[in-house]
Amino acid sequence: KKIVTLAGDGIGPEIMAAGLQVLAAVAPKINFAYEVEAKHFGGAAIDAEGHPLPEATLTAAKAADAILLAAIGGPQYNDAAVRPEQGLLGLRKELGLFANIRPVQIFEALKHLSPLKPEIIEGVDFVVVRELTGGIYFGEHTLNERKARDVNDYTYEEIERIIKIAFEIARGRGKKVTSVDKQNVLATSKLWRIVAEDVAKNYPDVVLEHALVDSLAMKMITNPNDFDVIVTENLFGDILSDESSVLPGTLGVMPSASHAANGPSLYEPIHGSAPDIAGLGIANPISMILSVAMMLRESFEETAGAQYIENAVNKTLLEGVLTKDLGGTASLSEMTATIIDNL
Amino acid sequence: KKIVTLAGDGIGPEIMAAGLQVLAAVAPKINFAYEVEAKHFGGAAIDAEGHPLPEATLTAAKAADAILLAAIGGPQYNDAAVRPEQGLLGLRKELGLFANIRPVQIFEALKHLSPLKPEIIEGVDFVVVRELTGGIYFGEHTLNERKARDVNDYTYEEIERIIKIAFEIARGRGKKVTSVDKQNVLATSKLWRIVAEDVAKNYPDVVLEHALVDSLAMKMITNPNDFDVIVTENLFGDILSDESSVLPGTLGVMPSASHAANGPSLYEPIHGSAPDIAGLGIANPISMILSVAMMLRESFEETAGAQYIENAVNKTLLEGVLTKDLGGTASLSEMTATIIDNL
Ligand SMILES: CC(C)[C@H](C(=O)O)[C@@H](O)C(=O)O
Ligand SMILES: CC(C)[C@H](C(=O)O)[C@@H](O)C(=O)O
Repeated sequence: KKIVTLAGDGIGPEIMAAGLQVLAAVAPKINFAYEVEAKHFGGAAIDAEGHPLPEATLTAAKAADAILLAAIGGPQYNDAAVRPEQGLLGLRKELGLFANIRPVQIFEALKHLSPLKPEIIEGVDFVVVRELTGGIYFGEHTLNERKARDVNDYTYEEIERIIKIAFEIARGRGKKVTSVDKQNVLATSKLWRIVAEDVAKNYPDVVLEHALVDSLAMKMITNPNDFDVIVTENLFGDILSDESSVLPGTLGVMPSASHAANGPSLYEPIHGSAPDIAGLGIANPISMILSVAMMLRESFEETAGAQYIENAVNKTLLEGVLTKDLGGTASLSEMTATIIDNL
Repeated sequence: KKIVTLAGDGIGPEIMAAGLQVLAAVAPKINFAYEVEAKHFGGAAIDAEGHPLPEATLTAAKAADAILLAAIGGPQYNDAAVRPEQGLLGLRKELGLFANIRPVQIFEALKHLSPLKPEIIEGVDFVVVRELTGGIYFGEHTLNERKARDVNDYTYEEIERIIKIAFEIARGRGKKVTSVDKQNVLATSKLWRIVAEDVAKNYPDVVLEHALVDSLAMKMITNPNDFDVIVTENLFGDILSDESSVLPGTLGVMPSASHAANGPSLYEPIHGSAPDIAGLGIANPISMILSVAMMLRESFEETAGAQYIENAVNKTLLEGVLTKDLGGTASLSEMTATIIDNL
């Protein structure tokens, strides 16, 4: 299996190295044979090749069986240089990564980090499914000195395929889909709701409920245990998936996956490149390591391998081996080594 | 002074009555002379006049010195009947209510209701300023069976006037404006950020910071004490202002104001019409009563009157006179009577 790695900027290279160490340690246990091809992306790619998403990176990514991305961006790359249109959004569009999946779970050992009361977050376990290649992100953008316009487009098919993903995931979990829109205002949301109802007909075993985005932004915090699978369009998903990350109390333990209709999936931590602590060896590698676990499960059907990693992470946290962001003193390499010991 | 009241649906009439009782009780103390004209709006207007926003209501509203709105909507009025385009959004547009103001404050007596830990919400005191007559709400909406489109438009002037409001409010408070956009993706947000910088030049005493909407959706929960005045466009404001209402732990104590460039302002609770408890006499009137206080302060410069009401509400809550939604057993009329006693 060929895995393309995009280490990117800031703490990206450090946490990517940690993720690959864990992968190397788990591979023999599950007889998983793979090769890794490292490519430039983001600021690092600008430095090396003059463009955030070089042709060679794109070609390699397209030919991969899976892609691991660490993090990109940093103060030395101003907006113009790492414009998402060229970098991240370009990668998503070129690879057709229309389905972004973010599991939201509470780690017992980190519960105290949450800004929410323990009784609210106890047992929280849901997945946010975000449409990632449509909507206002990819509509026409026009800007001049006096006015600006963005266009939000969705087709029936674009909505249908992401809603189907949500139902498929729900079928394997709590059998409930919460579809989020703003159907009292937006035409795209009116269509969204129609399609959600249509798709639901093929999943009689799964409950569908609708929520308005404003209302959901409240309920996600007041009643996070009400949710199993939340599905929504690109912009709402951007906001709500970030909002959902307050529940575990840290961005440092949350992986994500992005899937295409055909071709490789991409796995990445939900956090950024943390340029302020880059190179200090104190970054928390867990989001990256759990992204590797997601890759094993979702791209390679290596459920056992994913479980080994997830259990080892859990054990490590319960043992109190914590990086600085989690309130501990462990270094990146100490934490990685402990996770590998616990495999 | 002429006040037009729109009691609306569900608990609307009950809480409007409570708000007007408090106004009647405070008026003599501050020598405030006023008359009230009740008009139909929402479902009640459909029942009475066949349209959610009758011409007579609009005419009276336009001629008023201030407008009080309670709440509209209910299960008997399906979406089509109270389509916001005709009702609420029509009212906002016709009256030019471009600036929606929502103070977010923690009531000592209700702190335990918040899903957030006490140390997180301690001292929270900020204002969300939402642009209310532009953006994707009022752009072209097109929908057919296979695709849908919404258009998000903003002009320099539309952005400038709302940013100015935010700076004016900040000048009278904590002297900090957090401007929220998605400038790494949207053209309207790129313009938004430019205008915010332009306006800031006229307010050297106020600090301007920018935040991306996804990031702000997290920080509002993890660091709510970082904010003084948050200003944003219509759709983001819809989501973020609702999200902010989780901090106090109840929608039941939050008022709002909407201002125009010329003409009357409108004051309303942020909560809905709660049809399930309509007519039972157990609704919590505080959001409505605090909306009356906001009206006295912002439309009539009756600061003392506003303060009397706010203090009386505070005292009532501290005395433990609480409606059911706040964990108590007081009826709507008991709570209203106690607030009036405490004036
Ligand atoms: C960088 C930005 C364009 C991106 C997005 O909005 O999709 C990011 O916030 C994300 O969620 O991955
Ligand atoms: C009813 C709806 C159109 C409205 C809005 O989105 O503006 C409501 O959510 C609000 O915030 O007042």
